[in-house]
Amino acid sequence: MIENARSSTAEHTRPVTEEEIFDLHEDGKLAVNAVGSIADPRELAIAYTPGVAKVSEAIAQNPALASRYTWAHRMVAVVSDGTAVLGLGDIGASASLPVMEGKSALFKNFADLNAVPLVLDTTDVDEIVETLVRLRPSFGAVNLEDIAAPRCFEIEDRLKNELDCPVMHDDQHGTAIVVLAALRGANITLGRELGEQRVVISGAGAAGVACARILQAAGVADVTLLDSRGILHEGREGLHPVKAELAASTNAAGLTGGLDEAMVGADVFIGLSGATIDENLLSVMAPDPIVFALSNPEPEVHPHVAGRYASVVATGRSDFPNQINNVLAFPGVFRGALDAGAHTITDNMKIAAAEAIAMVAAEDLSVERIMPSALDPRVALEVATAVAKAAGEDGVV
Amino acid sequence: MIENARSSTAEHTRPVTEEEIFDLHEDGKLAVNAVGSIADPRELAIAYTPGVAKVSEAIAQNPALASRYTWAHRMVAVVSDGTAVLGLGDIGASASLPVMEGKSALFKNFADLNAVPLVLDTTDVDEIVETLVRLRPSFGAVNLEDIAAPRCFEIEDRLKNELDCPVMHDDQHGTAIVVLAALRGANITLGRELGEQRVVISGAGAAGVACARILQAAGVADVTLLDSRGILHEGREGLHPVKAELAASTNAAGLTGGLDEAMVGADVFIGLSGATIDENLLSVMAPDPIVFALSNPEPEVHPHVAGRYASVVATGRSDFPNQINNVLAFPGVFRGALDAGAHTITDNMKIAAAEAIAMVAAEDLSVERIMPSALDPRVALEVATAVAKAAGEDGVV
Repeated sequence: MIENARSSTAEHTRPVTEEEIFDLHEDGKLAVNAVGSIADPRELAIAYTPGVAKVSEAIAQNPALASRYTWAHRMVAVVSDGTAVLGLGDIGASASLPVMEGKSALFKNFADLNAVPLVLDTTDVDEIVETLVRLRPSFGAVNLEDIAAPRCFEIEDRLKNELDCPVMHDDQHGTAIVVLAALRGANITLGRELGEQRVVISGAGAAGVACARILQAAGVADVTLLDSRGILHEGREGLHPVKAELAASTNAAGLTGGLDEAMVGADVFIGLSGATIDENLLSVMAPDPIVFALSNPEPEVHPHVAGRYASVVATGRSDFPNQINNVLAFPGVFRGALDAGAHTITDNMKIAAAEAIAMVAAEDLSVERIMPSALDPRVALEVATAVAKAAGEDGVV
Repeated sequence: MIENARSSTAEHTRPVTEEEIFDLHEDGKLAVNAVGSIADPRELAIAYTPGVAKVSEAIAQNPALASRYTWAHRMVAVVSDGTAVLGLGDIGASASLPVMEGKSALFKNFADLNAVPLVLDTTDVDEIVETLVRLRPSFGAVNLEDIAAPRCFEIEDRLKNELDCPVMHDDQHGTAIVVLAALRGANITLGRELGEQRVVISGAGAAGVACARILQAAGVADVTLLDSRGILHEGREGLHPVKAELAASTNAAGLTGGLDEAMVGADVFIGLSGATIDENLLSVMAPDPIVFALSNPEPEVHPHVAGRYASVVATGRSDFPNQINNVLAFPGVFRGALDAGAHTITDNMKIAAAEAIAMVAAEDLSVERIMPSALDPRVALEVATAVAKAAGEDGVV
């Protein structure tokens, strides 16, 4: 049991002030710079006219050269329509831009990839898809971000079909990867096997759906998923096709009802709902359960409370131990996919990413340290290597 | 008359090799970097979650704050469909990207603006327009580039109507601005007045049309424009509406025929056609004419030949005196428009840009130096200041 869930480092950290936040955001957080000097006529003739015509001509004759002589094949478009931004909801494209700028900055800092925010003043699935199809020669990969469910599923599926490059909705798969990594870390610490766990996921939005899928793909036999109306089961009517598919493939015991029913005897609780839960629900779980209360900024259950019941507690927050943060996944996933020249991101590539994160964590593992630090520079490199290898094994390069 | 048109600096410049060109272009010419450090948990909390939520929330409540707390209001989208790239023609979006990267690099180097190439895999006017309308929250201005006439006219007109931000097709207006600046410089050197000149423009594509318009707006009373079929005049049938409008407003003398007829007694020849002209045509011009042979890489007439007839000769090339290069215009035009918060770019703003360039040139003027160096760092600043002032005078801020 965790006696003191608040990390000691957090106590030494000054609180962030609004003034600091707004000061940093003046004029935005990104800069586009020229690679190489253009300071004399000769350099101008190399980088621009007339020299550049040679490069354009070469690409016109052999389109494959675009992936060598332009920045596009290393450029990630960070795309949002602003409909599900952090905990703020549907605040629109323009208001989502600071988040996309931050994400782009993290791509550079962790994976040395160029990323550009493209925020779209439309929420129409067809329009979003066709916009990115038209822009295809401009980028090498698409990171979808903060797009509300269930549209996010259709947009991602359609783009994966229509674009010959890596596409990933990070709120789904980035979260799923770090959750799987954290669950591996927790299980190693506790000496348990992933396949034997009974996992309850509260929340069937983008993150919940993707977590259920990756846990199934990674071999967890018993996953039960709940949305705001309760347990997903085959008898429920009016389910969106995505939920209907999960209702059929999860919930092996055929449970009905809500969390009261789902939590009885569960080994793992993963909160991705934004709704708080009563601590009594933790008392009906299996002994020494694992609790990931990932809603931000308010976890489903306070980690101090969860620590009275659980053997491992994790949150999405940096001021408690065991932060589960997407930044451990997306930079390395895209870097690995682009390094390999992959034209898509497969399940195995995501699972490989989770394993790579867990392997870094395994070097210094404890119940208060199931994940590497969000800023650990080794992670993106390890993830990229593992993802590139998996891409080769899956034959998608 | 110009005895030795080849500049002495060019003779001291080593030729650029293809190897140098392709080496520089490996992986492209642009990088996106984070402004500010994200190296510890506190910095991460300021630039990304949870701090960024404060900024997004503020913009959601007051959309005007996007122009303060995001990069969009200083970001220029450099947009092309690859249909009229340099002298290469319709080589497609992907092959145009090295040019757009170079252009973006010049925006940073000369005007300290962030610019991102957006190359579009469509040549449909409606699709190009709607794509940029959907992307509107992502950028602060649009530089259209290397889009073939006559679609370029419609795309620019439509975008100027549908976007509340500066939009400029550089092949039109950037060229027109530098041509007007060069003509002012030449006239000052020769002690002539702009309004009294008879100007012949060979080429009625993007650049020719825009040059005719800016010269009219700047007070040149007698402009005659020719396309591949000859002089534009009101009696010609089957003209595109853009040419028909110019046929009506130019060619005061009602000339018909071709260059043979147009050049008789002309004071200024501006070549923007790609077609070479016979030197005999220069002999029928008014005494000591001005010749701008701007086609690249082969000027309409070699400057050595033109120098036997003309008092001032200019080209688009850096290896002859009097290079007329768009890079003197576009960085400062966009910088000035964005500095002023202008929602469009007016004729007066373009004329102000030309005058600012001419004023810098006037500090050290001669028949072999009617324009500043393409790399003169003073120009963009002077242009930006003049453009911003004109924007205020025109009430478009």
